[in-house]
Amino acid sequence: MSTKAGEIKEIKVGMLGCGVVGSSVARLLSEDSGDFAERVGATLKLVQVAVRNVSAKRDSVSSSILTGDPQKVVADPSIDIVIEVMGGIEPARTLLMTAINNGKSIITANKALLAQHGAELFDAARKNGVDLFYEASVGGAIPILRPLRESLVGDHVNRIMGIVNGTTNYILTKMDEEGSDFASVLKEAQALGYAEADPTADVEGHDAAAKAAILAGLAFHSRVTIDDVKCEGITGITSRDIQVAHDIAHVIKLLAIAEKTDTDAISVRVHPTLVPRHHPLAAVRNAFNAIFVEAESAGDLMFYGRGAGGAPTASAILGDLIAVARNKVRGGIGVGESDYAALPIATVGAVKTRYLIRLDVADKPGVLATVAQLFASHDVSIETVRQSGRGDSAELIVMTHEASEASLSATVDALSKSSVVKSVESVLRVVGNAS
Amino acid sequence: MSTKAGEIKEIKVGMLGCGVVGSSVARLLSEDSGDFAERVGATLKLVQVAVRNVSAKRDSVSSSILTGDPQKVVADPSIDIVIEVMGGIEPARTLLMTAINNGKSIITANKALLAQHGAELFDAARKNGVDLFYEASVGGAIPILRPLRESLVGDHVNRIMGIVNGTTNYILTKMDEEGSDFASVLKEAQALGYAEADPTADVEGHDAAAKAAILAGLAFHSRVTIDDVKCEGITGITSRDIQVAHDIAHVIKLLAIAEKTDTDAISVRVHPTLVPRHHPLAAVRNAFNAIFVEAESAGDLMFYGRGAGGAPTASAILGDLIAVARNKVRGGIGVGESDYAALPIATVGAVKTRYLIRLDVADKPGVLATVAQLFASHDVSIETVRQSGRGDSAELIVMTHEASEASLSATVDALSKSSVVKSVESVLRVVGNAS
Repeated sequence: MSTKAGEIKEIKVGMLGCGVVGSSVARLLSEDSGDFAERVGATLKLVQVAVRNVSAKRDSVSSSILTGDPQKVVADPSIDIVIEVMGGIEPARTLLMTAINNGKSIITANKALLAQHGAELFDAARKNGVDLFYEASVGGAIPILRPLRESLVGDHVNRIMGIVNGTTNYILTKMDEEGSDFASVLKEAQALGYAEADPTADVEGHDAAAKAAILAGLAFHSRVTIDDVKCEGITGITSRDIQVAHDIAHVIKLLAIAEKTDTDAISVRVHPTLVPRHHPLAAVRNAFNAIFVEAESAGDLMFYGRGAGGAPTASAILGDLIAVARNKVRGGIGVGESDYAALPIATVGAVKTRYLIRLDVADKPGVLATVAQLFASHDVSIETVRQSGRGDSAELIVMTHEASEASLSATVDALSKSSVVKSVESVLRVVGNAS
Repeated sequence: MSTKAGEIKEIKVGMLGCGVVGSSVARLLSEDSGDFAERVGATLKLVQVAVRNVSAKRDSVSSSILTGDPQKVVADPSIDIVIEVMGGIEPARTLLMTAINNGKSIITANKALLAQHGAELFDAARKNGVDLFYEASVGGAIPILRPLRESLVGDHVNRIMGIVNGTTNYILTKMDEEGSDFASVLKEAQALGYAEADPTADVEGHDAAAKAAILAGLAFHSRVTIDDVKCEGITGITSRDIQVAHDIAHVIKLLAIAEKTDTDAISVRVHPTLVPRHHPLAAVRNAFNAIFVEAESAGDLMFYGRGAGGAPTASAILGDLIAVARNKVRGGIGVGESDYAALPIATVGAVKTRYLIRLDVADKPGVLATVAQLFASHDVSIETVRQSGRGDSAELIVMTHEASEASLSATVDALSKSSVVKSVESVLRVVGNAS
């Protein structure tokens, strides 16, 4: 902090982990032909990399800087900045806390860690006067955290809706464009490397939920953890759901939504959502990510790009690395997150949205009246109903006006107990039209 | 610069101009209920506003802080930050130079001034150790300059393609969606306030050219002025051009393009461009703006939002204002532009792109062979040709492979002199497919 400009000639960097992302970071640092030094005002030198298997050969990392002991990296007094790309909660958490307490600035891509233990890390970084940057944790290469933290700081964010998981967006795009069902597209995605052997974290929405918590915290200047996020994945989406959405000019996307409610509470959730086909988010295909931000003065904004992959994620990490290195050269730290607003988390039942409900009902007179009455008695107003016969039963597709989760949930409960309803086939949320 | 954190309790702000954007800035500052102070660490106070007509009543500015003399604002030693929203080259340039030399940090939305005299202002800001931020000058509310300057600083930008003028995008959208011709849509746009009474700066591409210069300078760490930008507007676009584009699944957009050539020179240009209908830029409708960035590691990124208007532009200005104020509170300045790369500007003739050429030719045997021979003799390779008869003449639509401007220009020259060609009806550039 007391360093004067011009004193620092070299910034020493340590890295925890060297998988797909870490290797890309090392490669980009080694390939640089002087641009980074010009942009920083000092050279950047990768001096130590902690890996599980020291003897494995790596293309862009000299074996002389590999170590099997991550403690060495966070304890080495010569290291100025630590990049963490090992992932997982422990030992990453303990290692980063040690590094921060040793006065090192941190760059991390670890969304799970930040969404669970962000507060602890942010507080420690503030106390120690070090930078803790994490652009790569959400949206891969897409600059979204810095724009929220700095560019939109003179505005008020009302809502964020993000396609922040490439695997599920790839699956939903294929289901939409090819009419395939979930299971077969998932298999195809696994074969192509777009989905992991155990796809749970992606398809159940957990990965998106961690990112939703990070976005919500930054946008609303509050502390939000993954436990605050109501989460629903895409495993229940059928090709019939996609078809019905298509018929009413919508597509189904897994959205991470963070919004301020009427009572200035924060609602954070991840769920499959019907998006109007002309909405900018509807055009985000395959493994691409996009974050749509609705701000009071700025209006609608969207940030689009590659949400994963070695090089894209490394681009975000290097952007943070150069920013932190510049701060070191100038003697100081950059803008961190802030939690002054300390908004409460909304109760789930209070959140309002529109719903599309698909019912299998008996095909006989009076059924529609009975169903309509059930909605009305729970204070859920119907926008449109479409009924189509299929043998001795009929499909009833109901679009509601905005209703609270509590009312809707009570309605669905009543529907499933009603004698005229054979089954509630799906309940999907719908976002309003973009201007 | 020597101020210690915690010493500053209030940051005093002066403003030059108070039109649509300035009024929004004043309104947002006056409506703030304490958020900005929390985010800055000191209060922001608008203390003086220079306007042409001091006696005109303004809703959000107390008449006590109005002055008819802008010199007062830039000379007042108590003012820390000057916001310039008066526009035009002079007196804005002289006023800002005075303010900078008086140690004030600057926030400006003045694209024309920056594209013409940026170097002089940047150098003065550097010399005086003050911030000069200008996010509002390109893309209105869209955070694009800070992402280029900071987020993508660890990457290498290869190309930027921007829809940076709302008026022309509105006109082209209407022409595409309603089949109307340029003149009637322009009239409609003027009636709705989307186009000015004198639309020259918009429809001839000058406004976009200024923004192209600013984007190119930041992306390539070089100095680029509006004189380096080759510029062509949309006044020559006919409904037939739009129709032909439509038939081959393209839309016509006025793009500001800044790219690095094979020889590491910078090509900057503004022209109507055929964009594939599935490209993210094709979905940017009406007055919305979007900047598409192709970077080496990050891949394709897009930044989308409102490119003009009081509140959106004010959102960008307030983001800069809070950033600059934070820097003051911490004692220092932020990251400015840089020009270390000093890349040369490419000669226009060397720039390569694909072209769509529409010819009116005599409808008789041998014409296609003659035309094809003309292309070949100028080293322009043809990708597809489509011929359709219309009475005694025929329309010939030629899509070329990539060719240099010089070769293409020589080809068009030869075509227009050929006896089989009645007229060269249009020559349009085409951008490649996005991944």
